[in-house]
Amino acid sequence: MCELLGMSANVPTDICFSFTGLMQRGGNTGPHRDGWGITFYEGKGFRNFKDPNPSCDSKIAELVQNYPIKSCAVISHIRQANRGAVNLENTHPFTRELWGRYWTFAHNGQLCDYQDLVTGRHRPVGQTDSELSFCWLLKQMEDKYPQPPQDMASVFKFIAQCCDKLREKGVFNMLLSDGEYVMTYCTNHLYWITRRAPFGKASLIDEDVEINFQEETTPNDVVSVIATQPLTDNEEWHRMKPGEFGLFHCGELADGNADQLIDVPFAEKKVKCQAPTEPLE
Amino acid sequence: MCELLGMSANVPTDICFSFTGLMQRGGNTGPHRDGWGITFYEGKGFRNFKDPNPSCDSKIAELVQNYPIKSCAVISHIRQANRGAVNLENTHPFTRELWGRYWTFAHNGQLCDYQDLVTGRHRPVGQTDSELSFCWLLKQMEDKYPQPPQDMASVFKFIAQCCDKLREKGVFNMLLSDGEYVMTYCTNHLYWITRRAPFGKASLIDEDVEINFQEETTPNDVVSVIATQPLTDNEEWHRMKPGEFGLFHCGELADGNADQLIDVPFAEKKVKCQAPTEPLE
Repeated sequence: MCELLGMSANVPTDICFSFTGLMQRGGNTGPHRDGWGITFYEGKGFRNFKDPNPSCDSKIAELVQNYPIKSCAVISHIRQANRGAVNLENTHPFTRELWGRYWTFAHNGQLCDYQDLVTGRHRPVGQTDSELSFCWLLKQMEDKYPQPPQDMASVFKFIAQCCDKLREKGVFNMLLSDGEYVMTYCTNHLYWITRRAPFGKASLIDEDVEINFQEETTPNDVVSVIATQPLTDNEEWHRMKPGEFGLFHCGELADGNADQLIDVPFAEKKVKCQAPTEPLE
Repeated sequence: MCELLGMSANVPTDICFSFTGLMQRGGNTGPHRDGWGITFYEGKGFRNFKDPNPSCDSKIAELVQNYPIKSCAVISHIRQANRGAVNLENTHPFTRELWGRYWTFAHNGQLCDYQDLVTGRHRPVGQTDSELSFCWLLKQMEDKYPQPPQDMASVFKFIAQCCDKLREKGVFNMLLSDGEYVMTYCTNHLYWITRRAPFGKASLIDEDVEINFQEETTPNDVVSVIATQPLTDNEEWHRMKPGEFGLFHCGELADGNADQLIDVPFAEKKVKCQAPTEPLE
């Protein structure tokens, strides 16, 4: 199995603290030695760092832990391989372009009888059930919306319906982002927490590190973190239910069951994520 | 304008030396302050590092210079923006998946009347003439070969014909790779050099750095480097002609004018690039 980490924020925020906790599970406090990856969106673009080697002793993971890259949407994954060899093309997250947006996907779990998933123009490069199911999802999305859709809330509701079908094939915990939204889909293990003022302290489960978010934030910051297992031991994480999907936007959980998504005009609640204020130097 | 750097090798080879020279042109010895990027293939997968900030003082560029990532196919770019704002989505190289392979593209030059380039399912995310022309090329490739083609030599010959049309719109120096081949197309500035035994010393033009390749290589290594301007001052670089295309495979220039490509069974000359022998730790 693997572990997932995602973030949605209303201002560009670094994920160094949570990523530090996750990386320990990559061969240190956890058995996920078969690679790791992280994708940060900045505007419509993204950066990705990945390595098929264990995260706990990766120089590139060390850079990502110590160098605050600020983003409003992040997806990360550490891998314990089940389907597909340990190599770079099988290392999550996977990214494809659709409708002029980059879509990033990471999966926790294992599917059976997944070989019958028919893909379209997006073909898998590697051999994992995860990348195949991502390409299958993209085909469903493109078949349903041949032209770039305007109402993204409907799109995510439709993706969740497709995920219900993937869940019939096994364990399918997923994070998906187009750079603006971070979508979650739960089969069994997915937790989330939203941090906002008044901010407090948090301490990692996997390493002896504590942070005082009050020193790192402004009063208007809203940041949600999603993970397959809670990363801190002194905060209350919400557990998602089997079959539940979540849609995070600008740090807030927009909706947990999608019923009201259609009625909520997202444009109204959209607070445009600003570009990073500090240059990456 | 921008600068390009590419590499093709028959064994996984690091590009630290050449990259160090190129990075100095990103705001130090050259005016290319508007971002940089580099893509390394490893097997069918790839890693990409990019930054919209100047390369000469980027922490991520520093990591790439000092940390030997070994690859058989590399494409790099530093940018001096003309079309499109300075941001991450406009930073080269660009990557898209087609036929179950990742294609990576970088462009030097500037096109006029490019807005009439019709794209298909691959849509640009940013606003550059470069990314648009890449998506246009992908449409030509997919229209011509709806299914994954077997004869890649014919594919690259066809791409070169498409590049001839782009050259009618302005300056189009290009590097393109599917991870196995590195294709070059020249309008005005493109140089290449192939290094093989007996290896000698080389010294960078842009920084006071010398390397003795004999200490870094084995006698069977063959490594070609392509750049918009020569990077060393004590070696003989070959200049490509306007409209010329080159196809590098396992370090060797397969052909410069494509006429014999169809007749050369590539499978025969293919020496499979081995996976990196040293783990990235």
